Amino acid sequence: MINIQSLNKEFESRVRLGIMSILIVRDWVEFKELKSLLDITDGNLASHAGALEKNGYIQVHKEFVGKKPRTTYQVTALGKKAFTDHLSQLEKLMRQI
Amino acid sequence: MINIQSLNKEFESRVRLGIMSILIVRDWVEFKELKSLLDITDGNLASHAGALEKNGYIQVHKEFVGKKPRTTYQVTALGKKAFTDHLSQLEKLMRQI
Repeated sequence: MINIQSLNKEFESRVRLGIMSILIVRDWVEFKELKSLLDITDGNLASHAGALEKNGYIQVHKEFVGKKPRTTYQVTALGKKAFTDHLSQLEKLMRQI
Repeated sequence: MINIQSLNKEFESRVRLGIMSILIVRDWVEFKELKSLLDITDGNLASHAGALEKNGYIQVHKEFVGKKPRTTYQVTALGKKAFTDHLSQLEKLMRQI
């Protein structure tokens, strides 16, 4: 039986896989660094990061550095658990092939 | 650098991951068997299988067995190549974590 229900729909998109893969091995990461590491547009990153935040998987910190706004992201404990579960289910599925 | 661009967008969805994982290790598989293995609705399977067919990743065979229509699917060479590439990129990404 291929158990796809155990895969987390919130991590289907490549962008979200990328965001979580980076945040899970780093502490706070800036918006522009995530954007360049993943080679995606501002809008694409903002919308997927927003969805991950809404699910409680990442947290967002916004501040001004001088006159400039700065947005940084960090994975939450909930996010770390959910993502590692997703990866182990993905590995399980790939081992069946 | 996390290279998410090398992940194939056509295989993002869990359903498509499931369909390809089954078809890549089996020959012709019937619609109803795929549906039960993946535990999804007719509509969900039909729409994702249709998209994979449009991309040339799977082929569909329709026939009547007595008065009953029968639909079976098989992965194509193109599909096998694209999916194995996708899986190796996924493994590469997961090894970086």
